[in-house]
Amino acid sequence: MENLKEPMIESKIKLRVRYVECDPMGYLHHSNYLPYLEMGRTELFRQSGGDYRTLESEGFFFVVTKLSIQFKRPARFDDELEIVTRINRKTHVRIDHDYEIFHLQSRVLISTASSTIACVDRNGQLIPIPAKIDFQLPDGVTGSTP
Amino acid sequence: MENLKEPMIESKIKLRVRYVECDPMGYLHHSNYLPYLEMGRTELFRQSGGDYRTLESEGFFFVVTKLSIQFKRPARFDDELEIVTRINRKTHVRIDHDYEIFHLQSRVLISTASSTIACVDRNGQLIPIPAKIDFQLPDGVTGSTP
Amino acid sequence: MENLKEPMIESKIKLRVRYVECDPMGYLHHSNYLPYLEMGRTELFRQSGGDYRTLESEGFFFVVTKLSIQFKRPARFDDELEIVTRINRKTHVRIDHDYEIFHLQSRVLISTASSTIACVDRNGQLIPIPAKIDFQLPDGVTGSTP
Amino acid sequence: MENLKEPMIESKIKLRVRYVECDPMGYLHHSNYLPYLEMGRTELFRQSGGDYRTLESEGFFFVVTKLSIQFKRPARFDDELEIVTRINRKTHVRIDHDYEIFHLQSRVLISTASSTIACVDRNGQLIPIPAKIDFQLPDGVTGSTP
Repeated sequence: MENLKEPMIESKIKLRVRYVECDPMGYLHHSNYLPYLEMGRTELFRQSGGDYRTLESEGFFFVVTKLSIQFKRPARFDDELEIVTRINRKTHVRIDHDYEIFHLQSRVLISTASSTIACVDRNGQLIPIPAKIDFQLPDGVTGSTP
Repeated sequence: MENLKEPMIESKIKLRVRYVECDPMGYLHHSNYLPYLEMGRTELFRQSGGDYRTLESEGFFFVVTKLSIQFKRPARFDDELEIVTRINRKTHVRIDHDYEIFHLQSRVLISTASSTIACVDRNGQLIPIPAKIDFQLPDGVTGSTP
Repeated sequence: MENLKEPMIESKIKLRVRYVECDPMGYLHHSNYLPYLEMGRTELFRQSGGDYRTLESEGFFFVVTKLSIQFKRPARFDDELEIVTRINRKTHVRIDHDYEIFHLQSRVLISTASSTIACVDRNGQLIPIPAKIDFQLPDGVTGSTP
Repeated sequence: MENLKEPMIESKIKLRVRYVECDPMGYLHHSNYLPYLEMGRTELFRQSGGDYRTLESEGFFFVVTKLSIQFKRPARFDDELEIVTRINRKTHVRIDHDYEIFHLQSRVLISTASSTIACVDRNGQLIPIPAKIDFQLPDGVTGSTP
């Protein structure tokens, strides 16, 4: 894998809520928001020139170490949503993301979230994020060691 | 449904991690912890004499409005876990829970979490928690309106 | 809802395999193919001018009564797949679909499946498929009562 | 791992349907039956003295190559179910299972299924089932090469 291109610091993905993801209330079940956030991170990484699958094959893994999420409005089967994912902090072993989830048409904000992921090896030991993953941070955001 | 029995303020459930819940790292995927917390709430409610399914048939629903979770150690396929669920605050429309997840044999704490659930009607409008759900809070914990 | 447009008898949808859908072997877990088939049915219905969510709000539901699936090749995280869904038989209460799942780039066929869905009311009782859902069948395929 | 004990040829497991597994109809979603079948296989293997996790660590994997399932009655949130799993045929690379799913209290049969699993190595290549997995077949059932 080459060094990353001038990286994106925000990804926007669109998706439709699946029937299987909805619960007896008719709402997107709260646990099913988390894979959407993961998809947001994957696309942000791809837009930066990265490929998470290749990274794993090279022995680098990212695990979620904490996550916080607020549910403001429900989503229902077949709703079209937009997931906005941003990096807001990066250290040599961790990356913090913020997320917003919108109803695509109405632009109503239905959920906000934040998470921390850490780089680990095959045995789950914390290791430095590979140098080639050189995400550019927004102005004023300075990564520091954790 | 009769008024609830002298309620439990803590539930402990045991479960085995399913193969389908684990990811390519071999770890229980972080999103799959959330259904475990929901199962903990359901059992806490059952131990208090409640029945969430009946409650829904009567038009009372509980939705998660926020959730925060820390992942300290991984869990793997076939691991036996214990989920400890406690109520730590209750208002007339909301209940806050805290959770701890342990490896059953080693007693290693692998995750902690907290959540807020709110009572809503069929249309998702906030409504008071039915009086019959009269959870007793631990000493020194006083519910107040939100 | 108006009567359906000249209906499609085949839908093709593209999707990427999600990390959460893959198991410790690194493969798309076999149970996670079934929601893909459901998405294929939903899109086939949409292309025909239908809207499954509206149909449910009107009291018509479709339940899967049987399903058969063959797994020929694995799929992995981030693979792009194409799901091809066809109606091959329709009676006044049931619709049979056939499916093929391909790796999008290589066109390798990784799975074939077939299913039967039946129309039921809110109480799960078998009811006739609403007349407005007038799927046109391919030449030579004649629907008959079950 | 020692050679297996006199093996069981049937496992019976009990479980409760989870809220997250149910769909907007209020029914256990049809895709969520498949993990139950997998749990039935895992327990059948465990009762025979086997340990699927250990087997994977030794480089033996079982993949589902085909599966067929009939849905006769719905299941709902909090229902207690029993999954009965039987081996009905075994060759040197494949095992066929049959399944019945019952409502635990009423003994109503809600689903029947059958599947074929095949033994593969880390690269997904078909390999002989390890000799130590010496499932005894019921009288009159003779395994043969596929």
